[in-house]
Amino acid sequence: MTVLETTNDLYAEMRAIGAQARHAAALMARATPAQKTAALQAAAAAIRARGAAILEENRIDLADARQHALSAALLDRLALDDKRLEAMAGGLEEVAALPDPVGKELARWRRPNGLDIARVTVPLGVIGIIYESRPNVTADAGGLSLRTGNAAILRGGSESFHSSRAIVAALRSGIRQANLPEDAVQLVPTRDRAAVGMMLTLTEYIDVIVPRGGRSLIERVQRESRMPVIAHLEGVCHVYVDRAADLAKARHIVVNAKMRRTGVCGAAETLLVDRAAAATMLPPILADLHQAGCEIRGDEEVRALDPAAVPASEADWSTEYLDAILSVGVVDGVEGAIGHINRYGSHHTDAIVTEDKAAAERFLAEIDSAIVLHNASTQFGDGGEFGMGAEIGISTGRLPPRGPVGAEQLVSYKYIVRGDGQVRP
Amino acid sequence: MTVLETTNDLYAEMRAIGAQARHAAALMARATPAQKTAALQAAAAAIRARGAAILEENRIDLADARQHALSAALLDRLALDDKRLEAMAGGLEEVAALPDPVGKELARWRRPNGLDIARVTVPLGVIGIIYESRPNVTADAGGLSLRTGNAAILRGGSESFHSSRAIVAALRSGIRQANLPEDAVQLVPTRDRAAVGMMLTLTEYIDVIVPRGGRSLIERVQRESRMPVIAHLEGVCHVYVDRAADLAKARHIVVNAKMRRTGVCGAAETLLVDRAAAATMLPPILADLHQAGCEIRGDEEVRALDPAAVPASEADWSTEYLDAILSVGVVDGVEGAIGHINRYGSHHTDAIVTEDKAAAERFLAEIDSAIVLHNASTQFGDGGEFGMGAEIGISTGRLPPRGPVGAEQLVSYKYIVRGDGQVRP
Repeated sequence: MTVLETTNDLYAEMRAIGAQARHAAALMARATPAQKTAALQAAAAAIRARGAAILEENRIDLADARQHALSAALLDRLALDDKRLEAMAGGLEEVAALPDPVGKELARWRRPNGLDIARVTVPLGVIGIIYESRPNVTADAGGLSLRTGNAAILRGGSESFHSSRAIVAALRSGIRQANLPEDAVQLVPTRDRAAVGMMLTLTEYIDVIVPRGGRSLIERVQRESRMPVIAHLEGVCHVYVDRAADLAKARHIVVNAKMRRTGVCGAAETLLVDRAAAATMLPPILADLHQAGCEIRGDEEVRALDPAAVPASEADWSTEYLDAILSVGVVDGVEGAIGHINRYGSHHTDAIVTEDKAAAERFLAEIDSAIVLHNASTQFGDGGEFGMGAEIGISTGRLPPRGPVGAEQLVSYKYIVRGDGQVRP
Repeated sequence: MTVLETTNDLYAEMRAIGAQARHAAALMARATPAQKTAALQAAAAAIRARGAAILEENRIDLADARQHALSAALLDRLALDDKRLEAMAGGLEEVAALPDPVGKELARWRRPNGLDIARVTVPLGVIGIIYESRPNVTADAGGLSLRTGNAAILRGGSESFHSSRAIVAALRSGIRQANLPEDAVQLVPTRDRAAVGMMLTLTEYIDVIVPRGGRSLIERVQRESRMPVIAHLEGVCHVYVDRAADLAKARHIVVNAKMRRTGVCGAAETLLVDRAAAATMLPPILADLHQAGCEIRGDEEVRALDPAAVPASEADWSTEYLDAILSVGVVDGVEGAIGHINRYGSHHTDAIVTEDKAAAERFLAEIDSAIVLHNASTQFGDGGEFGMGAEIGISTGRLPPRGPVGAEQLVSYKYIVRGDGQVRP
C-alpha cells in the first residue's frame, strides 16, 4: 500500500468517526439527566470490573515506553495501579453526582408583541480532545463529556494507547447499559500522528477542540485548528507582595503558592515585591523558600539582598518552571506589579498580598487574568478548589469559557421563542 | 520600493495598530460606564456636526465605485445621505442608552475555607472587525465596541474607505472628548487586501475576529484566523408547517418569513410541509406566495400540487437566496422536518407552525439552531427584535456567543477570589 493510500484510508476512517460522533451527539442532546447519570455510574462499575484487563493493557504500554527509554517521570504518569483505577472510577461517580448542566434556563423574557424568549443551555456537540500521556485523562474527559451531553472523540498520547483503549471500552460498556449511543465516546484507533492534523480540519463533524498537554501541542492546535479551541496554554502565575502586606500571611502564601506542588499549573513561577517593602520582607520570605529547597532567580535588587540568588534572565520572567525554581523581582508598588504581570504572565492565576483594600481592588480589577486572588495562594487556581467538581483544564483564552472548564462550561445555549402566530410588521 | 519592503512596512504598521489597540483596551477596561456613555453621545454629536464632511468623503467613494462599475445594489448600500447619517448618530445614542455590560457579577459563592469567589464580566479586549461595503457598519461596530469597553480595529470594505475614515474620525473625536483613548477605535489605514491576512495572525494584539459579509469572506476568515472568530455564516432558515398547524397562522407566517424582507438573514429560504397536510395546506400557502411575487422551487410532490413550481435541485436545499425565491419540500411529520433542517440548514433560525404542543416542543428541542420558534415568523431572528438593542450579527457557531451578538455578548469574565491568608493544604 502506498503512503497516499494509507493517508486516504486514515482520512476516511477519521471522517467515519466524525459522522458517528455527530449522530451520537444528536442522541445525547436528547438524553435525560437520569440516563446520563446511569451511564456514568455504569462506566465507573465497568472500570472496576475490568480492572485486571486495563492493568494488563497498561503493562503493554509500560513495556513499550521502557523500550523507548521514556523518563522515570513519564513512566510514572503512564503507570496505572489499583489505587489509580479506583481514583478513575471514583472520579466518574463524582461527575455522575454533578448537577446536569443541560436544559437550564439562563434567561427568559417576554417582548411587547407577546413573544416569549428563553435562553436555554444545550450541549456543545462534538468535542475533540487531544491530550498527552496520562491515561486517566481518558476517563476524566470521557466522563465530563457524558455529563454534558456531548460526544467526545479522544486522541490520547501514543504511549498510553493500549491503556486508553481499555478504558474507553469500559466507558462504552457503561454508555450501552444506559441505552445511550456508545459512539458518544470514541478513541482514535491509531497511533498515527497524522490523525491529529486530520481532526483539526474536520469542521463538519467536530465543534470544538480541547488540547491538554505541553506548550508545543497547544500551539500546534491553536495554529492548525479550523474549529474553536478551548486551550490551557500555561500557568506563569505570580504572587505580588505589596508594601501593606501582612508579613506572616505573605510568607505563608508565597511558600504555599510555589512549593505545595510545583508541577501544577496554579503554582507560582514569579514573586514580585514592592520596592517599599523589599528590604524588610524579602529576606524572611527568601529564607523560607531556600529552606523549602527552592532555587531563586533574582533581579539585581533581589540579588543584593540574597547572595544565594542566581541572576534572572529576560526569559525567566515568562517561564513556567513547574519545578522548585522561582523568579523574583522588585517592582514599584501595585502599578509596577500590574505592568509586569500583564506583560510577562500567561493570564492564568495571579495573587496580591496586602492589607490595603484599595491596592487589592486595583490589582483585582486591572490584572488581565482568568483568576485573580487577594490574600490567598495561587494554588487555589483549580476547578476542584472552586467547587466545580471535575475540570478539563483552565482556559487561558480571553473568550468564554475562561478559567476552570468544568461541566457548566462545556455547554452552549440556544434561544427558544414561543409565539401565537406573530409576524414581523 | 520592492514588494517585499512594502509588505514589511504594512506588517509593521499593522503591528503598531495592534499595540495601540492593546494599550487602549487596558485603559478602556477601567473606564466608568458614565465615561463610555459620554463618549458615545459625543460621537453621535460629532457624526451630526461633521455630516457635510462625511458626505463629501462618501461622494469620493461613490465616484470610485461608479468608475469600477459597481452594481446599483452595491451603490445603494454604499451611499450616505442626511437620513442615513441621522440613523447612524441615533444608533450611537441608542447604544449609549444600553446598560453597561462590564463589571456585572454573574455568580458569587463562598467556599468552606472562607474564600469568596465571584465571576465578573470584563471586556473581551481587542476586537478585529472585518466587513464589507456598508459604511454604517463602521459606526455600529465602533459604538458597540465602545459600550463594551473593548478596543476595535476596523477593516471596512475598500469601496467605503473614505466614508469609513471620516466616520472613524468622528468617533475618535467623541472618545477624546470623554477623556478616553482615541485608539479604542482604529481603522486600518489602507485598502491593501494584504492587511486582512495580517490581522488574522496578530494573536498578540487581537483577541477575537468578527467578520461581517458574504460567505467567501466568512469562510476565508474561519480558515485563516489564528484567533477565535465570532462568525455569522449565513441564514438558511426554515418554516415547517405541521399537520396540526392552524392554516391561517401558517399562511400569515410563511408569507411574512419569506417576503417581508427577502434580503435579511432571518428570511426563510425553505418551506417544509408535513405530508399529512400537504394536499390541503400547500395550495393556499403557495397561492399566497405566488401572489406576493415569490418563485417556488419544489420537490416532486410540491410540483404535483403547483404547476408553476420549478424543480428544486439538491443545491437549493442549502441555498440562502436572499431573494424572492423559496425552496419547498414535503417531509414526514416533525421527525422528517428535524432531519431535513439539521442536515441542510445553517443553524441560524427555524420555525414550526403547529397547534400540537408535543410536536412543537420536540421541534424546539431537537433543531440544532441558534434560534428556534414556535408559531412565529423567522424574521424575528434579530437582536433588535429580541430587545437587545444594537447587534453586530447573529452567530451561527455552536460555542457562545451564539445567536444575536449584542453588547451583553461582547464581554468575557474573570474570577475574583478574596481571601484572608488562605493557603492550599
